[in-house]
Amino acid sequence: MRATLMYAAGDVRVENVPDAKIVHPTDAVIRIVRACVCGSDLWPYKELPPTPGGRPMGHEAIGVVEAVGRDVTRVKRGDFVVMPFAYSDGTCEFCQEGLQTSCVHGGFFGVGDVGGAQAEALRVPQADGTLFPLPVREDHALVASLLTLSDVMGTGHHAAVSARVGRGKTAAVIGDGAVGLCGVIAAKRLGAGRIIVLGRHPDRIALARDFGATDVVSERGDAAVARVRELTGGHGAHSVLECVGSEQAMATAMAVARPGGTVGRVGVPHYDATPASQPAFYGNVTVSGGPAPARAYIAELLPDVLEGRIQPGRVFDRTVGLEGVPDAYRAMNERKALKVMVRP
Amino acid sequence: MRATLMYAAGDVRVENVPDAKIVHPTDAVIRIVRACVCGSDLWPYKELPPTPGGRPMGHEAIGVVEAVGRDVTRVKRGDFVVMPFAYSDGTCEFCQEGLQTSCVHGGFFGVGDVGGAQAEALRVPQADGTLFPLPVREDHALVASLLTLSDVMGTGHHAAVSARVGRGKTAAVIGDGAVGLCGVIAAKRLGAGRIIVLGRHPDRIALARDFGATDVVSERGDAAVARVRELTGGHGAHSVLECVGSEQAMATAMAVARPGGTVGRVGVPHYDATPASQPAFYGNVTVSGGPAPARAYIAELLPDVLEGRIQPGRVFDRTVGLEGVPDAYRAMNERKALKVMVRP
Repeated sequence: MRATLMYAAGDVRVENVPDAKIVHPTDAVIRIVRACVCGSDLWPYKELPPTPGGRPMGHEAIGVVEAVGRDVTRVKRGDFVVMPFAYSDGTCEFCQEGLQTSCVHGGFFGVGDVGGAQAEALRVPQADGTLFPLPVREDHALVASLLTLSDVMGTGHHAAVSARVGRGKTAAVIGDGAVGLCGVIAAKRLGAGRIIVLGRHPDRIALARDFGATDVVSERGDAAVARVRELTGGHGAHSVLECVGSEQAMATAMAVARPGGTVGRVGVPHYDATPASQPAFYGNVTVSGGPAPARAYIAELLPDVLEGRIQPGRVFDRTVGLEGVPDAYRAMNERKALKVMVRP
Repeated sequence: MRATLMYAAGDVRVENVPDAKIVHPTDAVIRIVRACVCGSDLWPYKELPPTPGGRPMGHEAIGVVEAVGRDVTRVKRGDFVVMPFAYSDGTCEFCQEGLQTSCVHGGFFGVGDVGGAQAEALRVPQADGTLFPLPVREDHALVASLLTLSDVMGTGHHAAVSARVGRGKTAAVIGDGAVGLCGVIAAKRLGAGRIIVLGRHPDRIALARDFGATDVVSERGDAAVARVRELTGGHGAHSVLECVGSEQAMATAMAVARPGGTVGRVGVPHYDATPASQPAFYGNVTVSGGPAPARAYIAELLPDVLEGRIQPGRVFDRTVGLEGVPDAYRAMNERKALKVMVRP
C-alpha cells in the first residue's frame, strides 16, 4: 500500500510500504477515507533531523473498518469511523475520566510500530476504545467536518474547555490557523459573549468572523496585548485559547489573560517554560490544557456537526490525493493553504 | 505608637512611629488585638537590601475598630474585625467575583504609605470592603484561629480550591509550614479521601496528621516524587497544594501531579518559570493559584472556626509581645518556631 513518510525536514515522500494488518487481537485495520495534514506536522517539517527509514506521518482520519482482531467487540468490518489522533483502551481510569490522551495503554500514531494516517490504510491499536462509529455513510456531504472530529475540532474545543469559556464571558483566541478557527467555533458554541481572534491573514480572519469572532486584533506582540486590553476595559480576557505553541504566542496568551482568568493551551509547546510570577501568580491566572482527548468530545460534538450547527470542515481549503501529500505540506508550510484534506 | 520596621535582611526593629490615623474618608484605624509573622515575611528577612526608613511589616491581624472615615458605612467603632492581608473596595468587578487580591482600588499592607500590622494600630484603606466584623468579642477563646482567617487559613484554603480538591480524591500538600498545615485542614474540609503531606519536621507532621493527613512523605526531590507515585498507584495526586514557593517545591509539585490533575500554588514564587512541556502539557496538568483572596473566604470558613470543626490556630506555637517581634522573626527563620503570634 501507499503511505507517507518523512525522512527529514522538508523531505516528505509517499512510498510503497507493507500492507496494514492486524498484529494484536485488539487491533483494527481501517481503510482511510479522508486524512489531512496537521499544523503540528509542520513542526517536524521544519525541524526533523535525518531519519533513516522515515517517520510515518498523519494522525487524523476517518475511515472504514476492514478487519478487526479477535478481541474487538465494539466496532466491526464495514463501520465508518472517526479515528482520534491518540489511541486509547477506553477502559482505564484516565479514559473513564475523559482523558484518553493519558490512557495507560494508549499512544500516538506514527510512533514505534504504529503507522500514520496519510496512507491508504492503517492499523489502529485498541480499536474498541479508539474508534468512534458514525451513524452515516462515507459519502456523507459533511465528511470534511466529520474528519475534524479526529483532531482539529476536538483540539479547538479542548482549548475552549481548558480555558473555561463561560456564557457571556470574553474569550481571546491566539492564532488564526485551523485550530484557532475551531477554537472560535468552540468558544461560540460554549456561549462566549465576545470572541477576540488574534491573527492577520485576511481569508482566515473572514472565516473566523463567520465562525463567530466579534473582534479581530491583527497587531503583534506588545501592540496586540495593548489592543486586547483596550477592547476589554483594560483587564484582559476571561479565557484565552492558545492555539499556536510558539514562545511568542504563549507570552501573548499570558499577557492578555484577565486576573482570575485561564489560558487553555493546545499548541504543542515550542517553548521551555511559562513565566512564574507576573501575571500568572499575582493575577491568579490559571494555565491549563494539553493534548486534546479528542475521543472524549466526539459524542458531544457530533450532533452539532451532523445537524450543521457547526461547520469545522470549512477549515479545509484544499484537497489532494495521496500522491499530493508532499505538495500539501509545502503549501501549508508556505501558508498558501490553511489545512489540506487528503483523499487517498 | 510602636510598629515593626525592617531595614535590611535580618534587621527587624520595633520603633516609635506616628500614630495611625484616618487619611482618606474610606479608611478605618484599628487597634491590633493579634498579629503574626508570615512565612512570606521570611523572604525579605533573608533578602531585603538596605532600606532607608525601613519597610513596615505585618499583614495579618484581627483588631478593634477605633475610628472610621466619613464614607465608611459597614464597619463602626468598636467592631472586632478580621483584616485580610490585602485591602479591597468590595465593589469592583474583581471583588464581586471573589478575587479581592486583584481589586482595582486594592493593595497590600506595608506598601507605599500603608503601614504594617505588626504594630499597635494600623490604618486600613477601603475599610468597608476590607474588614470583616466578627460576631464575637476580642477575648474569645478561639482568637488564634480567628486570626488565621486574615491570611494563613485563607491561603491554605485557596491552595485547595485552586488545586480543585475533590471529594474522595487524593491531595498532596507540598510543605509542612503553617500554610501547608492549613492546606491539610482545607483539603480535609473539602472532602479529600487521601492527603499526602510532604515534610520532615516531626512536630509539624504530627500536627498535619491531627489535621487529617493520611500519609507522610519525608523524602526530598526525586525520592519524594517516587514515594508519592508509589502511594498513588504510579499516577500521582489529583490535586497538589504548593505551599512553599521555592523552585524545588514547585518542581516537586508538578512532578507529583496526576495526568489531568491540578497544582494550586500559593507560595510566593521564588522561581522564574514553570516547565512548559512535561508533565504540564503532555499530562494536561493545570497550574492555578496566586495570592489568596482571603476576604472572600472568611464567610465560608468562619462558622467552622467558631464551631470548632477546624482549628487552624494550632499552627501558632509561640506568642510574643510587640517588642518580641525581632525574636519571632529569628525563631521562625531558624525554624525554632512554626508561626509566632504577636499580642501588642
